[in-house]
Amino acid sequence: MRTEKDKNIPYKVYLDESEMPTSWYNVRADMKTKPAPLLNPGTMEPMKAEELAGVFCEELIAQELDDDTRDYPIPQEILDFYKMYRPSPLVRAYWLEEKLQTPAKIYYKFEVTNTSGSHKLNSATAQAYYAKKQGLKGVTTETGAGQWGTALSMACAYLDLDCLVYMVKVSYEQKPFRREVMRTYGATVTASPSDTTEIGRKILAENPGTTGSLGCAISEAVEAELVRDGYKYVLGSVLNQVLLHQSVIGLETQTALRKIGVEPDIIIGCAGGGSNLGGLISPFMGEKLRGEKDYRFIAVEPASCPSFTRGQFAYDFADTGKVCPLAKMYTLGSGFIPSANHAGGLRYHGMSPILSQLYHDGYMEAVAVEQTSVFEAAELFARCEGILPAPESSHAIRVAIDEALKCKETGEEKTIVFGLTGTGYFDMVAYEQFNNGSMNDYIPTDEELAKYAATLPPQPAE
Amino acid sequence: MRTEKDKNIPYKVYLDESEMPTSWYNVRADMKTKPAPLLNPGTMEPMKAEELAGVFCEELIAQELDDDTRDYPIPQEILDFYKMYRPSPLVRAYWLEEKLQTPAKIYYKFEVTNTSGSHKLNSATAQAYYAKKQGLKGVTTETGAGQWGTALSMACAYLDLDCLVYMVKVSYEQKPFRREVMRTYGATVTASPSDTTEIGRKILAENPGTTGSLGCAISEAVEAELVRDGYKYVLGSVLNQVLLHQSVIGLETQTALRKIGVEPDIIIGCAGGGSNLGGLISPFMGEKLRGEKDYRFIAVEPASCPSFTRGQFAYDFADTGKVCPLAKMYTLGSGFIPSANHAGGLRYHGMSPILSQLYHDGYMEAVAVEQTSVFEAAELFARCEGILPAPESSHAIRVAIDEALKCKETGEEKTIVFGLTGTGYFDMVAYEQFNNGSMNDYIPTDEELAKYAATLPPQPAE
Repeated sequence: MRTEKDKNIPYKVYLDESEMPTSWYNVRADMKTKPAPLLNPGTMEPMKAEELAGVFCEELIAQELDDDTRDYPIPQEILDFYKMYRPSPLVRAYWLEEKLQTPAKIYYKFEVTNTSGSHKLNSATAQAYYAKKQGLKGVTTETGAGQWGTALSMACAYLDLDCLVYMVKVSYEQKPFRREVMRTYGATVTASPSDTTEIGRKILAENPGTTGSLGCAISEAVEAELVRDGYKYVLGSVLNQVLLHQSVIGLETQTALRKIGVEPDIIIGCAGGGSNLGGLISPFMGEKLRGEKDYRFIAVEPASCPSFTRGQFAYDFADTGKVCPLAKMYTLGSGFIPSANHAGGLRYHGMSPILSQLYHDGYMEAVAVEQTSVFEAAELFARCEGILPAPESSHAIRVAIDEALKCKETGEEKTIVFGLTGTGYFDMVAYEQFNNGSMNDYIPTDEELAKYAATLPPQPAE
Repeated sequence: MRTEKDKNIPYKVYLDESEMPTSWYNVRADMKTKPAPLLNPGTMEPMKAEELAGVFCEELIAQELDDDTRDYPIPQEILDFYKMYRPSPLVRAYWLEEKLQTPAKIYYKFEVTNTSGSHKLNSATAQAYYAKKQGLKGVTTETGAGQWGTALSMACAYLDLDCLVYMVKVSYEQKPFRREVMRTYGATVTASPSDTTEIGRKILAENPGTTGSLGCAISEAVEAELVRDGYKYVLGSVLNQVLLHQSVIGLETQTALRKIGVEPDIIIGCAGGGSNLGGLISPFMGEKLRGEKDYRFIAVEPASCPSFTRGQFAYDFADTGKVCPLAKMYTLGSGFIPSANHAGGLRYHGMSPILSQLYHDGYMEAVAVEQTSVFEAAELFARCEGILPAPESSHAIRVAIDEALKCKETGEEKTIVFGLTGTGYFDMVAYEQFNNGSMNDYIPTDEELAKYAATLPPQPAE
């Protein structure tokens, strides 16, 4: 399908290091309706910087609360670290196009040229840097599937910062390789719930056989930070600051597309807490918000955890343990536990407040897809493009393929860009189930969703 | 340590697709003493093309036997496939230099920008291509650690060729992820010994509890090819044709170094069967053989399997099962079983005949290193350069660090280049042992080596 016109477009577009973005882009600056502020669940008033300072680093709080500054210069030390794995390539999926016999032009931003196996490093580096700059000794965090924990471990190893990771016990046991990668980078990895915290001991006493949950691991990581001098807690998704750091994905994509003279029509990303989707689309969304360009943005979520497509737009707790502030977002209710879906990174009940507001205001679409069709897309992609994608990223692949097949029917030569933000090396248990035909997916019923929606906290007065 | 002089040298040098090599380089053309020919163990005469045709593809046999043609144009279809993951970056290890406080300049050719996790794809693609071109239906092979099997599965998926992989049973069970990656690419993976072949059934009857060996898997793969119409057997290392295909590594390295105006002093690679070392050094070795340049070449092997440093230069069987022709090479004896060393790719009793001849003629050095010191180097490298290296590649890292530390003592600003040919994602069991302090290494005694050396077959008359 590589036409004469395509001859000038290589398989991979690499930027020079001199073309890397030197500022992050804050999409909030261009939003007419800003994302709703975080609320203190006790007072129902917007959280102030002083209140957040007990948990988060100062500079990161400033970024979290800043709806106005459009461009944030990236500190030189972070720029240098980024050169360990950035710029990342923008790849033209010539083989996938050929396989699908589609007139669509498909590109993907391949973010997985680093050992952590995902895009998470873009924010982990920044958060570790600001912790170091504030003179801290270390950071604490939780990790589920392990991508965030690995990324943070790498950043801390580089900056010589202590790193305490609470890893959901079921993952700690079922993903020993992830655990050992973190240890190789020098992190202290503890299965959660553990006997190292009050809350952990309490949960263990009540449920001796529990395999843990992300909500519990968050509570332990926050407690571990509070009882230690010189430690702060960090988080890898959902927050505004994370989307700010991840904008480096979209900025590089924009530069690469301009370099080859290509205008995208549709931009697609998978959505769990929103960190990769938000990062990829931010600068393009900015153009749309400013009325300069028009693009279709599609968020793809698992049918087993459909925050955008079947959730409520309301204030809710960001964590299951209800220790975090309230955020206004698309949510299934903080008590919602998705079925055992292998795309661990997408199993979050809520969604980035920024993306939630943009979706609510009609700037973005969302679709939910089933796991088996996601793995069909993953296998097809692996066989013709060579890369074994993570289950999370494969959600975006599924919809990119669907859109390309629509073009085949209509004959339209649309340009599709999607984010490929993870590799599947640590997800082979899921692939094995798919290979064996034993994979299934569970889609929650309306009744189940209504039950959890009824647990939303009281909403603030309008 | 990044000096003013280095400012023009980026962290990563990427070639344009237009700068990729269009021919492979055959180092045999420049060797005064050619590698000794393969011998038929029955007649002790050099193997003829007709004799090899029962097992191998025609075009590959021609390449195997050709000591004279210097440049082999790479077919367009292979060049296109190479663009899936090539050109691969040449990386300046600024952070490692900083960490070591060495005046040495360290570069590594990072070959692991593809899902198979190693450089093996460079030859797998070529071998699958020639099989397809010959009108074959499929290929058979064996795999131990699984890197070669994965690479071949990827190439066969791309070319729509059937792929039968006999995987050593112990790896089949202990590395289920590798197995499932191959299946995702459509390969049929069978634990060896199996009941699908005569030889497999025979071995199982004699040793019902056996966990298999590479020698047995080779025998099964060869039998599987012989009993099927339209199938040939392929092999991922040792052979001359494999070194020819792998020369793409060295050719890209040479182009990248010229682009930034850098002359290497020392070139280092790990050596199992010789495929990556041979590929990396070939074009540089050509310059040395032609008297145009001088470089130090260092082969690094595990102390547990020291073919170069403690083996014999003699004719020996290439496989444990003694079904293959005799090759003249550095060998520990075809019955030698290395201790349970995690660098599966380096556990081969013999060595490429080309590299063996070059080593014998004094063009190359070799050192053997112990596993624990290899993992110390791997951990240091991971923490400062970000990449988690495979145990095999970490042998080269160990010696690159040692040479850089020598420069620190002498103050010499040598330029060191090494090959980073695999990532460690599927080797976390070994890393876990290292993290836990339970790793050990076994170095064979002189008596043990003498015992195996005594099993060498009768040598041909001089």
